Amino acid sequence: MIVTVTPNVALDITYEVERLVPHASHRVAGVRAMAGGKGINVASVLVGQGNAATAIGVVGGVTGELVRTDLAARGIPHVLVEADHETRRTVTIVSLADGEATAFNEPGPAIGRPEWSALLSTVRRLAFEPEQAAGVLVGSGSVPEGFPEDGYAQLVRVAADAGWRSVVDSSGPALLAALAGGPDVVKPNARELAEVTGLGDPVAGAKALQDKGARDVLVSLGPDGLVLVRVDGEVVRAALQSGLAGNATGAGDAVVAAVARSLEEGVAPEALLTDAVAWSAAAVLQPVAGMVDEADVARLRGEVRVWRD
Amino acid sequence: MIVTVTPNVALDITYEVERLVPHASHRVAGVRAMAGGKGINVASVLVGQGNAATAIGVVGGVTGELVRTDLAARGIPHVLVEADHETRRTVTIVSLADGEATAFNEPGPAIGRPEWSALLSTVRRLAFEPEQAAGVLVGSGSVPEGFPEDGYAQLVRVAADAGWRSVVDSSGPALLAALAGGPDVVKPNARELAEVTGLGDPVAGAKALQDKGARDVLVSLGPDGLVLVRVDGEVVRAALQSGLAGNATGAGDAVVAAVARSLEEGVAPEALLTDAVAWSAAAVLQPVAGMVDEADVARLRGEVRVWRD
Repeated sequence: MIVTVTPNVALDITYEVERLVPHASHRVAGVRAMAGGKGINVASVLVGQGNAATAIGVVGGVTGELVRTDLAARGIPHVLVEADHETRRTVTIVSLADGEATAFNEPGPAIGRPEWSALLSTVRRLAFEPEQAAGVLVGSGSVPEGFPEDGYAQLVRVAADAGWRSVVDSSGPALLAALAGGPDVVKPNARELAEVTGLGDPVAGAKALQDKGARDVLVSLGPDGLVLVRVDGEVVRAALQSGLAGNATGAGDAVVAAVARSLEEGVAPEALLTDAVAWSAAAVLQPVAGMVDEADVARLRGEVRVWRD
Repeated sequence: MIVTVTPNVALDITYEVERLVPHASHRVAGVRAMAGGKGINVASVLVGQGNAATAIGVVGGVTGELVRTDLAARGIPHVLVEADHETRRTVTIVSLADGEATAFNEPGPAIGRPEWSALLSTVRRLAFEPEQAAGVLVGSGSVPEGFPEDGYAQLVRVAADAGWRSVVDSSGPALLAALAGGPDVVKPNARELAEVTGLGDPVAGAKALQDKGARDVLVSLGPDGLVLVRVDGEVVRAALQSGLAGNATGAGDAVVAAVARSLEEGVAPEALLTDAVAWSAAAVLQPVAGMVDEADVARLRGEVRVWRD
């Protein structure tokens, strides 16, 4: 069982327009509205690949209702805490002429103490269910105002108490504060890692996080693949043998999904990295986040190269 | 009593961003969501200026709920027919750096026969209420799929049967088909008029509409003001004596609101045009459609020039 926590759930709205022209009025050709937020995307990828996963988050208002409806329609198990405030929206404009995306992200509503307590008890309840085998907790994405500074660390500790493993994918102060909880894996991308460590080299940055309490650090390098800096100092890299064009939105969430499944199954680093690169590349081939195609994954797995420094 | 009918209601979402950069990801600084659609804006202007007006339209889903909630919060009387489909959204990105707006308009959901019947009966019921003095019907905006081709003409006839007067503000085939109902005033802008008549000159275009059954035709010319071509051939023009910078969204709806009130009060063309130009100019000074400030209207009324060709 994998449980993903999304502190900053969103309704992701995608508009297709012929071409984005600033200061003009556009007729929207295609409209999609989906439950979003990084942890939701992670759960969606896992469920799509046949894994048991539950998405946890805070939602509110009628936009929150749309999130619930979409999760139910997509068959993604979820336990959502109800808040007073409207769930945020994001609007992404996809220009059909060049395939490029322009995104507008509403700030999330603040999370209150009662919602935070409810979120934490939900994770505790799921992790300590009597029939529950050991699982994996995923904490994913930015955190809204009111989310405790050490919120991810608290979640990781609840998971550890139940014998669960954990992955955190966040950035900035939320990423740094998560390290105190001792997550098994953190997955910053190269830019996020440089931001919090001031170091341009991913391996040096990963070691700096380990000095602050991190264990395994998996850094995503975009088209250059992944570098895993293990807590024992071992460095393993993986990348696709050839480039890939597509929509990078959601590629990081697919990496986290693969890591969570690998932690649950207890596989070796090589297998973890192969899956993570293949799932991530398969996500790039999809028009929206939270999806990978099984046939793409199978084919791409054969194109992943894994090596040690 | 003025009743406005909006076949294509929307939830108008406005995002303020620092600067719109195509292909970038933007943090939204300010978010506003308001009930929209041209007839809703007309009712909003009227109510804001102390006139009795009721907004009628078709809404559905949770987005429709947001429209209802906003109308209630703004104190705009409304009778909304419930449909199965989600009400459409529009998203307008306002760039704070230059004040320019970029709009994305979702297509409206199709309107079904039952919703159309309910809309028509609602207008009939309001127009024939026993305690009701003569009123004005406003039909405003684009029409969704499924709206009868002669829908505006039917509405105008229901109004006329009750002794009401009527204004239609639409474009394309919906405008042309409305003429058969004999609306007292139609208000195309210069571009809309040229589109349906093929004539660049507004007075010639207005006369072409009159050949097809139109009575008074009021053409809005943007910063150049208004030209009223009366059914008896008289041409009266009005414009502000000096230019005005601002947000033209909603200026046309303010014109229609002023026309509806003038029809209700039975004023002379000069007074109608003076109000229409002043309300329209006052709308340009507001950040969103559906609003005019009374002090602006009072001041701007003194700056309107009315003349005959």
